Amino acid sequence: MTDAEKVFRDITAIREKAPVILSITNYVVTNTTANALLAIGASPIMSHAVEEMAEIVAISGAVVINLGTIATEYVAAMDPAWAAADEHGVPVVLDPVGAGASRLRTNTPLALLAAHKPFIIRGNASEIMTIAGESGVAARGVDSSAGSDAAGGAAMALAEKHGGAVAVSGETDLVVDAAGSRARVLGGSALMPRVTGLGCTATAICAAFATVNKDPFEAALHACVTMKTAGEIAAAKSAGPGILQLHFYDALYNMNAKDVAEHLKVER
Amino acid sequence: MTDAEKVFRDITAIREKAPVILSITNYVVTNTTANALLAIGASPIMSHAVEEMAEIVAISGAVVINLGTIATEYVAAMDPAWAAADEHGVPVVLDPVGAGASRLRTNTPLALLAAHKPFIIRGNASEIMTIAGESGVAARGVDSSAGSDAAGGAAMALAEKHGGAVAVSGETDLVVDAAGSRARVLGGSALMPRVTGLGCTATAICAAFATVNKDPFEAALHACVTMKTAGEIAAAKSAGPGILQLHFYDALYNMNAKDVAEHLKVER
Amino acid sequence: MTDAEKVFRDITAIREKAPVILSITNYVVTNTTANALLAIGASPIMSHAVEEMAEIVAISGAVVINLGTIATEYVAAMDPAWAAADEHGVPVVLDPVGAGASRLRTNTPLALLAAHKPFIIRGNASEIMTIAGESGVAARGVDSSAGSDAAGGAAMALAEKHGGAVAVSGETDLVVDAAGSRARVLGGSALMPRVTGLGCTATAICAAFATVNKDPFEAALHACVTMKTAGEIAAAKSAGPGILQLHFYDALYNMNAKDVAEHLKVER
Repeated sequence: MTDAEKVFRDITAIREKAPVILSITNYVVTNTTANALLAIGASPIMSHAVEEMAEIVAISGAVVINLGTIATEYVAAMDPAWAAADEHGVPVVLDPVGAGASRLRTNTPLALLAAHKPFIIRGNASEIMTIAGESGVAARGVDSSAGSDAAGGAAMALAEKHGGAVAVSGETDLVVDAAGSRARVLGGSALMPRVTGLGCTATAICAAFATVNKDPFEAALHACVTMKTAGEIAAAKSAGPGILQLHFYDALYNMNAKDVAEHLKVER
Repeated sequence: MTDAEKVFRDITAIREKAPVILSITNYVVTNTTANALLAIGASPIMSHAVEEMAEIVAISGAVVINLGTIATEYVAAMDPAWAAADEHGVPVVLDPVGAGASRLRTNTPLALLAAHKPFIIRGNASEIMTIAGESGVAARGVDSSAGSDAAGGAAMALAEKHGGAVAVSGETDLVVDAAGSRARVLGGSALMPRVTGLGCTATAICAAFATVNKDPFEAALHACVTMKTAGEIAAAKSAGPGILQLHFYDALYNMNAKDVAEHLKVER
Repeated sequence: MTDAEKVFRDITAIREKAPVILSITNYVVTNTTANALLAIGASPIMSHAVEEMAEIVAISGAVVINLGTIATEYVAAMDPAWAAADEHGVPVVLDPVGAGASRLRTNTPLALLAAHKPFIIRGNASEIMTIAGESGVAARGVDSSAGSDAAGGAAMALAEKHGGAVAVSGETDLVVDAAGSRARVLGGSALMPRVTGLGCTATAICAAFATVNKDPFEAALHACVTMKTAGEIAAAKSAGPGILQLHFYDALYNMNAKDVAEHLKVER
């Protein structure tokens, strides 16, 4: 089975299963990541109500913990949700948005990782380097100026320490796991970083693949391929980042085996 | 006057009146439901600040209480807002998002309904069946797998108990009231459930019609017809759910008497 | 240097500098204003976590304080953020969303203005008149029925009292400062008020210009020109407000010197 066939097999499984995915996520991307999850065939629910975390996790196929809105009332739900996910064997995808931009954004994912094992950690280079403890990372808000390859060592260190896979988004995506699997995913479009929340969308799409693929490296890799493919298809129709966002959802919704085969560019 | 003429009469009245509509709603759909309300000619305000509820309700033509974000800080504003609406005779449209997915999502709308009379309750089949107390409803997050017709008895029971109208959204919408009025609204597009928050948008549009039509059954029916019409017009121009969402607003904004007459499909 | 040349010089500077802009803003517009800031070349971060305000402000080129979500947990971060901005010399753009619609919405910006100096205040006519203390303003939620020229005296009074510039958005925008500079900006599109949050977007764009132009009047004027230009370009391609929003981002992203020169309509 080729990589492209495996990616499309998983997309088909998501569409058939329509898994519930709980996201504790930031208020910039609730709408857009819900739309991306619906477009790929999943069933999103967004919540940070601590009272319902255990019940919602129990009906979820995967959980997204995204630290973009780092306010107390959001963070309070994360540990209980993750504990429930541990109990039910539900995979958790962690997105340390803005790690390095403030102590709170650095320390909160570290505290969660000290207590729980992630299925996938997904971030940009500076976020991944920050939570791996690499110094000298220039904090630039929630964006990253570093390329994903610069975070290769940090990603590897995180995977070895916490298990699961680590995906670093950038012009080229990098995916690694503790067993030594490593892949670079090329493609996409330079317009993508000009749309807010496409990184958070990659995290949500990782969660969708986590519901149908028990190997975190493959789930993360397939998510990155799907993002790059949809981005490339959308960019070909788009004069700018505004319209791209809508074509991106449509590309996810309509993605077929030929789309994946034509756009997949993976280097191992 | 035909149904289509009555729907368009109400749309025209909304455009002329530009009613303020207060929404206590979830953070997934604040932007999209505000855009839908603006597109149809209303004037949205989103708030959950309990200190201002009485004042904002006093200048509002209708109030949306949407339980999608069920966190304490959102829910705290709902009873005070509804109490102010009761005092001022402002109609309230209740959307029990995700009822059945957690005890909190089931009990919160029930507690509100124990204290206040809704003008319209709008939900999907599983939400309506849950708050009507029907057992055996499979909780699937905020989506519903059941068709709206399956919720006919539940909708009728709710209308009889609480007054007002009940609208059940689905492939076919169902609208009932306690006086025995009953209508099914056909049309729309299979793409619509792939856009997040179009159910919440239907609730917001119910509130817009509630400002110009004192009959809750007619207001709900006209809202459902408007949603199906806009969805059908938008889908004809759309390759997927992403672009559909934007054409949907444009269809609301441009909707004329001929559009309604051509797309309206009501069965009584 | 013509006005158009100065506007485009500043746009170019924003694109080169990619300044971090912190927004404490409302949950209706987090996504759309982040997209507008990315489209013009800035690097947005949205937060209301009081614990990180000082650190995020320290890496920001400008701060947006937008009162659209007036709930306690949002407002709590505003004074600390502004105090940090004062300390670091970071310009603050204040948007008193809905001032006049409730005492809370009127009093909160007044309390902030009693403690801090704004670089720019941007609002619609009724908001500006309200916080200038003009009576008899009809509160209509977050919309304004008054034209911006009606707020000329109020804008002038605010500029004299608090320093900086005041921008009043409307069919025609009005920009003033305490030194007596005054300009009207024409153009745009009647579709723009039918898109939620384009006023908040104007505030965010004011912040982007504040990072590259030390004169608050020029920064506000250039932001208004950029908004009208992008709106006009987008409207020419749009059948309604839905599609317009996306073309608007694309127009910001692609804006060149010729676009500005052709669309700029400033009266002094």
